[in-house]
Amino acid sequence: MSDLNASTADEGNARQSAEHPTAVEAFAPGSIGNIGPGLDVLGCAVTGAGDRVIARRTSGSAIVLEDAGHPDLPADPAKHACAIAADSVRRACGASDTGVSLRVIKGLPLAAGQGGSAASAVAAAVAMHALLGEPLSRAELLACCLEAETAVAGRHLDNIAPSLLGGVITILGNDPPDVSHVPVNMELWFAMAYPHITVRTADARAVLPEFFPRATLIAQLASVSALVTALGTGDLALLGRSLADHVAEPARAPRVQGFAAALEAAREAGAVGGSFSGSGPTTFAACANETIARDAAEAMQRVYRETGVQCDIRVVTIDTEGARWHAVP
Amino acid sequence: MSDLNASTADEGNARQSAEHPTAVEAFAPGSIGNIGPGLDVLGCAVTGAGDRVIARRTSGSAIVLEDAGHPDLPADPAKHACAIAADSVRRACGASDTGVSLRVIKGLPLAAGQGGSAASAVAAAVAMHALLGEPLSRAELLACCLEAETAVAGRHLDNIAPSLLGGVITILGNDPPDVSHVPVNMELWFAMAYPHITVRTADARAVLPEFFPRATLIAQLASVSALVTALGTGDLALLGRSLADHVAEPARAPRVQGFAAALEAAREAGAVGGSFSGSGPTTFAACANETIARDAAEAMQRVYRETGVQCDIRVVTIDTEGARWHAVP
Repeated sequence: MSDLNASTADEGNARQSAEHPTAVEAFAPGSIGNIGPGLDVLGCAVTGAGDRVIARRTSGSAIVLEDAGHPDLPADPAKHACAIAADSVRRACGASDTGVSLRVIKGLPLAAGQGGSAASAVAAAVAMHALLGEPLSRAELLACCLEAETAVAGRHLDNIAPSLLGGVITILGNDPPDVSHVPVNMELWFAMAYPHITVRTADARAVLPEFFPRATLIAQLASVSALVTALGTGDLALLGRSLADHVAEPARAPRVQGFAAALEAAREAGAVGGSFSGSGPTTFAACANETIARDAAEAMQRVYRETGVQCDIRVVTIDTEGARWHAVP
Repeated sequence: MSDLNASTADEGNARQSAEHPTAVEAFAPGSIGNIGPGLDVLGCAVTGAGDRVIARRTSGSAIVLEDAGHPDLPADPAKHACAIAADSVRRACGASDTGVSLRVIKGLPLAAGQGGSAASAVAAAVAMHALLGEPLSRAELLACCLEAETAVAGRHLDNIAPSLLGGVITILGNDPPDVSHVPVNMELWFAMAYPHITVRTADARAVLPEFFPRATLIAQLASVSALVTALGTGDLALLGRSLADHVAEPARAPRVQGFAAALEAAREAGAVGGSFSGSGPTTFAACANETIARDAAEAMQRVYRETGVQCDIRVVTIDTEGARWHAVP
């Protein structure tokens, strides 16, 4: 909870102090979970597309899903990340009878490993929190988001913490959330390629081994330690070498045809390294600047298309701001 | 090899450019290997006692151990870390026939987990290198030190890299050595308590499990990531929480009676956390300043003595300089 104890009310968003807003739109960015070797312990918010939630107070006490955001997402508020997050926030604020209607606008793809479920939960939590005057600390708000993420994707902070807080986040524990910003002293761009292969987070986790040899553990510790160091010193070459994931990638790569070739093509285009974003199938490659990232993304797209798979690409950098909101009419 | 490619000749020590010195004394600091969770991947050079090697060119081509430094160390140059390191350096320099006599002055205890064998190897390597005009890069010199450390203690860089280079070092790989300085933006003191219980590095390694459950791996990744982050941000409380070692400490603690109680006493005296230094039995506790570290060291000493074990203590901070040498008459 290092940098999380301050009340959110003092920070960032303009707030109507006398009266709380009755309708807000919140935005939460996508994120790269794990960032290569940091399984469940590192995550990075990224620019560009994210998820939006428009929340309006109602006269009743129900949470109504006016728009679930995608045909494949549950219409039942009890099962939708946004409604669960909003409900958790109102309970934490002692306002369980505050009714709200939610309209979800998905900018991020489902089941892609770009932190979409996390961004939806965070946007809804931030919107609900804004309607209630932002009484919670960031740690408390994060715990509400975690409740929603746990219900729909698993008990992990590596997407919701960066989506809420921005930047690169290291996670020391979940109960209570113990998260901190990692110092980043470099320009860093990511080429992201999303091959249209469905990988459910739960399935991606099921393929992970239950036990690991000591040599694998030490290799992964080495990667994570060097990765955090490289972000702090701005050593892009070291960062590239440190993205080697000895734990999840070997188990997940066989399910994503073209993955190794796509990463190799990204390297040939100038990327320093890469891995799956979260549990995949989105593949990210780290790059020194936007131009190289564009080239690397197009190179990955070509490789995935050659395997017969449709592939969307994005070029992003670190979103240092995290989730934000504004009042709407 | 991030910051290791420069030739050592340009840096630091004054050097006689026309003629190389014929006798030098080198000093190499002790170190805390692992720094809690960073098994084999993190190490920190510390101030105070270290090992010294006085090296003199001879007219012959042999490496002579004038003084092995301790009755328990081998008198045979083929088995002594200093002589092995010196031999490796002269071979790397293409000067295999350069004779030298070595006098080793041990400031660090044997088999204590304070990086004593590493400091001896590093001091000898640096001394021999100085006699030969310092032609090697730091990476090449480190590889020579690793050869000696491998022969006497195991193939690990977590003591020799900080002893040679100073500061906190992260190790991404051994072949070739891939090491980098970790940014440290805080005052950090260590209470170190050395209970006189012999733990050979090889024995300490033998008790480590061969396989680890995924939850243990993730917890250790979390600790290492948070530890490197805390050093960079200067967050002492986070550093304390991140020193939790889920891998080596649980296996090694049962062999060091009083360990848990000693660390608890250090915490009560103001330390934020601690673990074994290297493979132990030396126990370190991280502290905000020298006064707290003194209190914590004395508290640990009391606990170990209560278990009937003699215990030496030191109070140290980070040695940022690493190994150094000067010419002697």
